[in-house]
Amino acid sequence: MCGVFGVYNSRTPAEDTFYGLYSLQHRGQEAAGIVVAEHDAEKGGTIFRQHKGMGLVSEVFKDEKIFEKLHGHAAIGHNRYSTTGASKSENNIQPFSLNYRSGNLAIAHNGNLTNSQVLRQELTERGVIFHASSDTEIIPHLAALSPEQDPVRQIYHALRQIQGAFCLVILANDQLIAARDPYGIRPLALGKKTDPKTGETAYYVASETCAFDILSVEYERDIEPGEILLIDQITTKTGKPTSLYLPPSKRKARCIFEYVYFARPDSTIFKHSVDKIRRNLGKNLARESTVSTTNEDNHLIVASVPDSSNTAALGFVRESNKLNRPARFEHGLIRNHYVGRTFIQPGKANREIKVRSKYNIIRGVLQNRQIILIDDSIVRGTTARMLIKLIREAQPKEIHLHISSPPITHPCYYGMDFPTKGQLLTNLFNKGKGADEEVESIRNYIGVESLKYLSLQGLLNSVPKFENETCSYCTACFTGDYPIQRADADEAECEEKE
Amino acid sequence: MCGVFGVYNSRTPAEDTFYGLYSLQHRGQEAAGIVVAEHDAEKGGTIFRQHKGMGLVSEVFKDEKIFEKLHGHAAIGHNRYSTTGASKSENNIQPFSLNYRSGNLAIAHNGNLTNSQVLRQELTERGVIFHASSDTEIIPHLAALSPEQDPVRQIYHALRQIQGAFCLVILANDQLIAARDPYGIRPLALGKKTDPKTGETAYYVASETCAFDILSVEYERDIEPGEILLIDQITTKTGKPTSLYLPPSKRKARCIFEYVYFARPDSTIFKHSVDKIRRNLGKNLARESTVSTTNEDNHLIVASVPDSSNTAALGFVRESNKLNRPARFEHGLIRNHYVGRTFIQPGKANREIKVRSKYNIIRGVLQNRQIILIDDSIVRGTTARMLIKLIREAQPKEIHLHISSPPITHPCYYGMDFPTKGQLLTNLFNKGKGADEEVESIRNYIGVESLKYLSLQGLLNSVPKFENETCSYCTACFTGDYPIQRADADEAECEEKE
Amino acid sequence: MCGVFGVYNSRTPAEDTFYGLYSLQHRGQEAAGIVVAEHDAEKGGTIFRQHKGMGLVSEVFKDEKIFEKLHGHAAIGHNRYSTTGASKSENNIQPFSLNYRSGNLAIAHNGNLTNSQVLRQELTERGVIFHASSDTEIIPHLAALSPEQDPVRQIYHALRQIQGAFCLVILANDQLIAARDPYGIRPLALGKKTDPKTGETAYYVASETCAFDILSVEYERDIEPGEILLIDQITTKTGKPTSLYLPPSKRKARCIFEYVYFARPDSTIFKHSVDKIRRNLGKNLARESTVSTTNEDNHLIVASVPDSSNTAALGFVRESNKLNRPARFEHGLIRNHYVGRTFIQPGKANREIKVRSKYNIIRGVLQNRQIILIDDSIVRGTTARMLIKLIREAQPKEIHLHISSPPITHPCYYGMDFPTKGQLLTNLFNKGKGADEEVESIRNYIGVESLKYLSLQGLLNSVPKFENETCSYCTACFTGDYPIQRADADEAECEEKE
Amino acid sequence: MCGVFGVYNSRTPAEDTFYGLYSLQHRGQEAAGIVVAEHDAEKGGTIFRQHKGMGLVSEVFKDEKIFEKLHGHAAIGHNRYSTTGASKSENNIQPFSLNYRSGNLAIAHNGNLTNSQVLRQELTERGVIFHASSDTEIIPHLAALSPEQDPVRQIYHALRQIQGAFCLVILANDQLIAARDPYGIRPLALGKKTDPKTGETAYYVASETCAFDILSVEYERDIEPGEILLIDQITTKTGKPTSLYLPPSKRKARCIFEYVYFARPDSTIFKHSVDKIRRNLGKNLARESTVSTTNEDNHLIVASVPDSSNTAALGFVRESNKLNRPARFEHGLIRNHYVGRTFIQPGKANREIKVRSKYNIIRGVLQNRQIILIDDSIVRGTTARMLIKLIREAQPKEIHLHISSPPITHPCYYGMDFPTKGQLLTNLFNKGKGADEEVESIRNYIGVESLKYLSLQGLLNSVPKFENETCSYCTACFTGDYPIQRADADEAECEEKE
Repeated sequence: MCGVFGVYNSRTPAEDTFYGLYSLQHRGQEAAGIVVAEHDAEKGGTIFRQHKGMGLVSEVFKDEKIFEKLHGHAAIGHNRYSTTGASKSENNIQPFSLNYRSGNLAIAHNGNLTNSQVLRQELTERGVIFHASSDTEIIPHLAALSPEQDPVRQIYHALRQIQGAFCLVILANDQLIAARDPYGIRPLALGKKTDPKTGETAYYVASETCAFDILSVEYERDIEPGEILLIDQITTKTGKPTSLYLPPSKRKARCIFEYVYFARPDSTIFKHSVDKIRRNLGKNLARESTVSTTNEDNHLIVASVPDSSNTAALGFVRESNKLNRPARFEHGLIRNHYVGRTFIQPGKANREIKVRSKYNIIRGVLQNRQIILIDDSIVRGTTARMLIKLIREAQPKEIHLHISSPPITHPCYYGMDFPTKGQLLTNLFNKGKGADEEVESIRNYIGVESLKYLSLQGLLNSVPKFENETCSYCTACFTGDYPIQRADADEAECEEKE
Repeated sequence: MCGVFGVYNSRTPAEDTFYGLYSLQHRGQEAAGIVVAEHDAEKGGTIFRQHKGMGLVSEVFKDEKIFEKLHGHAAIGHNRYSTTGASKSENNIQPFSLNYRSGNLAIAHNGNLTNSQVLRQELTERGVIFHASSDTEIIPHLAALSPEQDPVRQIYHALRQIQGAFCLVILANDQLIAARDPYGIRPLALGKKTDPKTGETAYYVASETCAFDILSVEYERDIEPGEILLIDQITTKTGKPTSLYLPPSKRKARCIFEYVYFARPDSTIFKHSVDKIRRNLGKNLARESTVSTTNEDNHLIVASVPDSSNTAALGFVRESNKLNRPARFEHGLIRNHYVGRTFIQPGKANREIKVRSKYNIIRGVLQNRQIILIDDSIVRGTTARMLIKLIREAQPKEIHLHISSPPITHPCYYGMDFPTKGQLLTNLFNKGKGADEEVESIRNYIGVESLKYLSLQGLLNSVPKFENETCSYCTACFTGDYPIQRADADEAECEEKE
Repeated sequence: MCGVFGVYNSRTPAEDTFYGLYSLQHRGQEAAGIVVAEHDAEKGGTIFRQHKGMGLVSEVFKDEKIFEKLHGHAAIGHNRYSTTGASKSENNIQPFSLNYRSGNLAIAHNGNLTNSQVLRQELTERGVIFHASSDTEIIPHLAALSPEQDPVRQIYHALRQIQGAFCLVILANDQLIAARDPYGIRPLALGKKTDPKTGETAYYVASETCAFDILSVEYERDIEPGEILLIDQITTKTGKPTSLYLPPSKRKARCIFEYVYFARPDSTIFKHSVDKIRRNLGKNLARESTVSTTNEDNHLIVASVPDSSNTAALGFVRESNKLNRPARFEHGLIRNHYVGRTFIQPGKANREIKVRSKYNIIRGVLQNRQIILIDDSIVRGTTARMLIKLIREAQPKEIHLHISSPPITHPCYYGMDFPTKGQLLTNLFNKGKGADEEVESIRNYIGVESLKYLSLQGLLNSVPKFENETCSYCTACFTGDYPIQRADADEAECEEKE
Repeated sequence: MCGVFGVYNSRTPAEDTFYGLYSLQHRGQEAAGIVVAEHDAEKGGTIFRQHKGMGLVSEVFKDEKIFEKLHGHAAIGHNRYSTTGASKSENNIQPFSLNYRSGNLAIAHNGNLTNSQVLRQELTERGVIFHASSDTEIIPHLAALSPEQDPVRQIYHALRQIQGAFCLVILANDQLIAARDPYGIRPLALGKKTDPKTGETAYYVASETCAFDILSVEYERDIEPGEILLIDQITTKTGKPTSLYLPPSKRKARCIFEYVYFARPDSTIFKHSVDKIRRNLGKNLARESTVSTTNEDNHLIVASVPDSSNTAALGFVRESNKLNRPARFEHGLIRNHYVGRTFIQPGKANREIKVRSKYNIIRGVLQNRQIILIDDSIVRGTTARMLIKLIREAQPKEIHLHISSPPITHPCYYGMDFPTKGQLLTNLFNKGKGADEEVESIRNYIGVESLKYLSLQGLLNSVPKFENETCSYCTACFTGDYPIQRADADEAECEEKE
C-alpha cells in the first residue's frame, strides 16, 4: 500500500505535499518522495526538482533546507509501504521522474497491477529499458509509446492497457493529472482551497481526506472510478478541472479492508466517514456476540487494541448496552508513543519484549474481569498471540477476542500487503477442516477463552450502499471472489507488491 | 523532571537499563545516558563505562554496538527532561561519572534541590570546581569531602546537607545505592527478578513501575521517604538490601501532579495505581460538573485530550451516568503517532499547523453535539487555545472544557518543569480579580462555552490516604503552600530546573 | 572526467572495485558507485546488486556492512567528477543499472559524446524515456533497440551509432564488456591476476594502471582504440578474452592533457609511464626557458605546485643543470593533507584563506631568491593569482611562472571539465591581441616577473610516438583542432559534461 | 601530543581558533574543541560557550551553524592526539571548562606531567573529584585550592606544584593566560595582528607559527620557558602583556624530536625554522653516509618517505653532491591525498593494502637503481618493513635506508606518543647485543641492503645553539638522559599519555 498526494497552483507546493504525506504516513512508512514542477521563465518549459529517501516523511525531509530548492507551482508526493526483497532498493522510491518526447513526467502510484508482467514482457521485447522492479514504471513507457501527442491523452492510452488497482497522481510538464481505476479499488479524493487574499484557487488530490484537513483544504469530491482528471492553467481560471473516463468496468470493487483497518479514522473515503463505518462494525459485532456476563460481574469490560480498533470498541459497547448486555469501555492497553522505525532491541533472545515495547497494559481495569478484546483483523497471528500472553499478566478472568471483520483467507493482488496464502494464519489451520473447527484451532493457538469473527453479512451491513451498483466492494481477502483476473503468474506478484 | 533507573546483579545491565529508560521516556526526552559497572578481574577494582547523548533513548542508543562495550553486573541510567538556556549543554547529561578518593562514583538524579546555590557557594569557597550547571553535581562533592570512609556513609553525610526533592540512583564502585528525600516528593520503586535457571536475584530501582513491567520484574515496594538503600554483593546472598534513614521531615510532600499528569497510567507510584487515581479525578469532576444535556441531545459527548486524560474521561462518563446525567465517551481527538522530536515544520508562518500535526479530529462524533472535553491541566494555555480552534472546525454545538485538577497558580521548585510565575496562564488574568473572574477570563481566552476546574477538595479526595500522616502531598503549584522553604534566590531556580 | 573499473572472476569483486575506485579517486570526487553481478543458483540467471552515493569513495562506502551484501563474481564501478547544474542529481550517479529484454545491464562511462543530443532526440521520438540527464543513458537504449540478440553484439550496434569520447565497462548478465572509442581519446587498460592457490585467473579493466597496483594486478595491455572486449566464463577457461572492433577512425586522438595533468604520475596510460612524460615536459620547458641567474645567486630555485607538477620540476632542474644554468629543486610549497570535501570555511569574507588552507609555504627556501615556479596549466587563473600573492609573503626576489603546457584556448568536448570558452583565462585577454601580448596580459594579471608556457612543439616532443599513425593526440584545448565534429548544439554540451 | 591555540580581542575568535587548530591538525587528530568567552553585558561577568567532539577539526566543526553560537572576544582551542584505552573517552576532550570560586576557567594543555599521580592522590585525599582521566584536570584543582584571589596568581600557584612538560592556554573569565614549563619542553609562540580599520590589536598564542600564517598573524616571539603570560583588557590598551616567571630549572630541555619529525616544516619553533633544521639533518646524514655509487650508476637516487622527510632528502642531495658523491632527488613515493580517518579497508586479510593505500610508488625512477631512502625515524618498524616490500616491486637494484635521527631507545614521559619501551623496535633486537649488532638486526628485519642512523653528534650539530645554556635539548628518547625525574609510577604513565 501507499499514499499519494498532489497539489496545483499553490505557492508552497513542496510544503503542502510534506504535510499531506505526513498525514498519509500510515499508508506507507518505508520511503517518501516529492517532485515539484516550476515554470522555467527563461526557456519557457517546466523544470522538475525532487527529493526522495528511505524512511518516514519526517526523516526524509528532516532538513529544512530541502524546501528552499523545491519551489514551483505544483507538486506530487508518495509514501511507500514496507516491501520485501529486491524492491527494497532506492531505485523504487516514487514519484518516478523522467524525460520523454513530450517533456517531463513524474508519477506516483497507489495500487498494484495484475498484468504488469505481461506488459513488461511486451515492452522489453520492443526494446524498452526498466530501471526499477516496480510495476508503476510500465505506465510512463506506455504513455511514451502512445501515438497521442497530448500528455493526458497519452496517459489515457496507457491506462486503457493496464489492469488492476491504481490511483495515480502525475505531473506532466505544467499539468497535474489524477486517475483512478474503473473498479475504484483504492480511494482518491479532490480538494480545493481559495486564498482569501489573492482569490486564487489551489487544487489538491490525496488518497485520504485527512491530508486535506491538516492544510485546511476543503474536500470537494472523490475522483470517480475510471476518471482521469486534468488540472492545468485553464482550470485555475475556469475553476473546472477537465475529466476523461476510462471504459466502465462490469462492477465496482472498493477495497473493504480500507474501511476495516487501513484508512485513518478521521478520513472520508469512498464518500463516507471511516470512523462511522468502524462504529458500525463494532455495533454489528455486538449483535453477533454471544458472550454474556457471569454472575459476579455486572459489566463486560471492552478493551481495544489501540488505536485502530478504538472506534469499533465504542460502537460495540453502545450496541451491547442497547441489547441489555451491560458493557463498559476501558483503556486496558495503551500504545507507546516512542516506538519508531529506528527502535533497536538489544538482547533479542527475549522476543516478547517487542510487544511489551509497543503496548502497556493497565492491570487495574483488566484484573479479575471478563474482557472482550476488540481487534480489527488477524493476519499472521504472532502479534495477537504475544499480546494475549501480555494481557494474561494482568490476570483477567476471561479474554474473549472479537475481530471486527471475517477471517482473512486469501491474498490480495491489488496492493494490500498481506502475506502469501501459505503464511496466512487461516491457512495453517484449515487443512480439511470446517470453518468452525478452523476458528477453534486459531482460538487455541492465540490462547483465548473464545474467538469471534464478524460475519461477512455483518461486514457488508456496516459499509455504505452505492446506488445503481450491484456490487460495490472487493471482499476477495475474505471470500476469494476476485473482481479482476490476474494475467500475471503467481510468484512475482507476491514479491513485487507495494 | 527526569527518569532514573538502576539494576544490580543482572547479566545484561545495560540492556535492562535501556528498556527501563525507554519505559520512562515520558519523564524526559532531551537526553539519556547509561553507566555500567564491571568488576575488574585483573586489578580487583570496578571499571565504569558509559554512553550518553542528546535525544530520545532510542536515538542515543540506536547502534547496537554500543551495548557490546557496556558489559558488567550493575548499571544506572537517566532520562533528562527538556531544559532551557545554559543547561542545554552536553556537560549536563546524567548520570555523572567521576573518580574520587574512595574510587568510582556515578549518580543519576530526579528532582530539584532548594539550597543548591548556597551549597555551591560554600563549596566553591573551599576550592571545589564545578563542570556542569546542574545542582546534582553538589552531591558527589559533599560525599567526597565527608569525613566518612564508606561510600554509603559518605552519601548519607551528603544527603543530610541538601534540601529539596531528590530521588537518586548511585553506583559506588561495586555497590548500587538508591535514595529518596524525606518528604518523598518524587516516586522511586524497588523491584526484583529471580533467574529461574541460576536462582540468582537481580535488583531494580526505577522512578515508576512501568520500567519493571517491560522487563517482567516484580514490584517489591517503594523506596521510603528518607530511605537510603544499599545493594551489594552481600545483598545478593542474603536477599536483603541494607537501609539507612535520613532524619524524618515534619510532613510528607508527595507530588500530587505526578498523579494528575506526569506519571504513566500503567505505573504504580506512591504505592497506588496511577490509572485508578485518574479515574477518581474524572469521577470527582463529574460530581462537580454542572453541564447538563440540552433538550435535543440525550447524551453529553465526553472526549479527552489523548492520551493523558483518557482515564479521567472514562471515570467522568461512568460517574455522570450514575448521577443520571447521560454521557458517552468518544474518541473525538486522535493523537498522531508520527510526531517525533525531529519533526520539522516548514513554512512556519502557519503556526496552527503544529496542533494539527499532533491531533486529528473525528468530525462525525463532534459535529452538532455538546462536547465535554477533559484535559488534565492548563499551563500556558496556548496549546489549549489552538486545540479548541481546531475542534471548532467540526462544528460542535458547545464545548465545555473540564480540567481534572485545580488552576496552576504557583511555580514548582521541586523539579516539575512549569514556567516562571509570570508565564503561567493564571497569572495573566488574576490582576486584582477574584477566582471566579479569573476563570472567566481564561474561559474567554481559550474560547469555550464553559470552563470547569476540579476543586482542591475534589483533587485531595481522589488520591490515596496514608495512615499516620497529617499531610501527605505537595499541592504547592495549586496552593502556594510550599513544604520546603528555599534557601536559594529566585531567578537561578527557574533557569536550572531539570 | 570520471574513472571506470571492472573485475571478472574474483571472489571479492566489490572489495576489488572499492580499492580500484579509491586509486582512481583523482578522476572524480563527486560521486561513486559499484554494481556487482552474482549467478543466481536457484533461478539460473544473474542478480545485480548496487551501492551508490554522493561523495568520495571512502565516504560512500564508509560502512563495512555494505560489502556483506555485494557478493558475486564480477563488478563494475565509477567515480564521477564534479559537475554543474541539473546533473548534480543522484539520478546521474553511475554505474547505471537496468533491466531489458536480454536481462540485466549495468554501465559505467568515462568520456563525453558529441552526438548525444541528436540521438536523444531520435530516441525520445521513438518513445524512449530518460531518467537521467547524462548522455550515457543513450547507450543502453540503443542496445535494447538493436536487432541483435547477443548483448555484446547489441553493444557493438549501439557504439557504432555514438560519436565522441567513451571508455565503457559494462556488466551484461554474466559477462563483462569493456570498450574504447576508435579515436582512443580516454585511457583504458586490461590487467590479470592469477590466484596462486586455485590457479584461477581474474580479469581487470581500469582507466589507469594505478588501480591495478593497489591490488597487485598485472598490467596486460591497453584496450585498443575501437576495441570491444568480452570477458565471460569461457575466457576464464581459455585465458583469452574475445574482441570485436569498431570501424577505424581516420586518426587517433589520445587526450594529451591526461599526460599533462589529469592522470596519476604512477600510472601507465597510452602504454607509457605518466611520470616519465611529465619529466620530459619539464626538460623541454628548461630548454625553452630564458630565465638565467642574476649575479648574486648562483642557483635558480625551482619549486613546483604540489603534487601534480613535482615531476616536471625535477625534469626541469636536471635539464637546466645540463645546460649549465644551475638550478635547485626546493619544496617551497607543501600541500595540506587535511583539506577534504567536507572542509567548511567560516567567515568567508576572507577569500584568500582558501589557498592558505590548501598550501603551506616554506619561507626560508623562497626568501630573497629567484624562484621558478612550475605549474602544469592555468585554467581560470584565480587560484594561480592567489597562490602568487601567498608566495610573495615569503619575499622572494623574483617569481618566474613556468607552465608545462601551452595556453588553454579552447573548451573540451570530450570529457575534460574545462569551463566554457568565455571563462578561460586566455579568452579574457586575447581580444584582438597577438599571442605575445596575450601572455603579457596574463602575466600581469597573475602578478609574476615573467610567464613562460611550454610551446606546442615542446609538448609534442615530450609525449610518445605511435608507429604508423599520422596523428596520435588530441590537442584541441591548445589548438582548436577538434578531431570529431560535434553534432550537438553548443549550450547543452557545456552543462552536461561530466 | 597535542596542539593548543588561543586568541584575545578578535571579533571572530571561534573562526580564528578553527583555522588555528586546522593548521595544527598534525599535532592531534583524535579530538578537537573550542571554548569562547564573551562579556555578559547584562550581568557583568563572562559567559563561556563551547563545542567539542571526536575527530578532525573539519569533522567536529563541519556545520557552519556552530559558529553562530560561538561569539565573543576571546577563545582557546585544542587538538588531541590519538590516545589509547580508557582515555579514549569524550570526557577527556579539551579544553576543559569549569566553574570555581573566582568564576569561569577553561584550559587546554600540550604536554605530560610527571607527578600527576602523586598530586591526584593528594587531591583526592582532600576530597577532590575527578571527571576525566587526563592529568590536565589537576591544574584547575590546584588553582581553585590556592590561597590566591587573582586567577593568574592561582595559576602561578598551581604551576609551581606540577612537574613535567606543559604548554597551557587558559581562559580565566575575561583574561587569556599562556604558560610554558621552565624546561621549555614543548613549543609555544605569541603573535599579534592589528586591524587596519580599527587600529585594535588582537593577540594570538599557538603551539607552532603555522597557525599564525593561515590567519596572516605576525609572529612576535616565543613564550619563554617558565613564563606565564597574561593578556587582558589592559593589554589591549598598553600593547604589553604582563608576564610572571616560574623559578628557573637547572637546564632547558626543548624536545629535539619536534625538529626531527613532529612540527610542521613551515613552522618556526624554538625561534628557528623547522625546514632549515631538517635540511641540516639531511646534510649531516650525507656527511656520515658511506654509500657510494656502483660502477654502472653515475648517480645515487635519493627518495624520501613523504612528506615529513622531503626536506632532509633535499639537504642530503645537496651535501652529497658537494662531497662529490653524485646524488639526485626523485619523487619515488607519492602520498595519497584521499586517505582519511574514515577510510575503511574491507577484506582485511590482505594487510599490506594499508601501506598501498597510503603510498604510491613511481616505478620508473626506482627500477634498477641504487636507492637511498630517507625517513625521519623508526618507531615500531612495521610500516617501514611493509613500505620496503612495496618499493621492492619496482625492482630497485639496492635500497639503503637512511634515518635522519639516532635510534629511539627510550620512551618519552613528556608527551610524545611513543610506545612503551618493550614495543620499541630497538628493544626487540638489543638483548645483550652491541649497538652495531642491534642495527644489523633491524636492517635484516626491515629488509634493506644497508641501514644508517644519524649519530647523536650529527643530530646535535643540526639544531640551533642557545646562548648561555649548557644544555638546551631533551634527547631522552635517544639517550635515556631524562631532564625531569618522574614522581609517578611506570604503568599509569604509559596509559594516560596524550
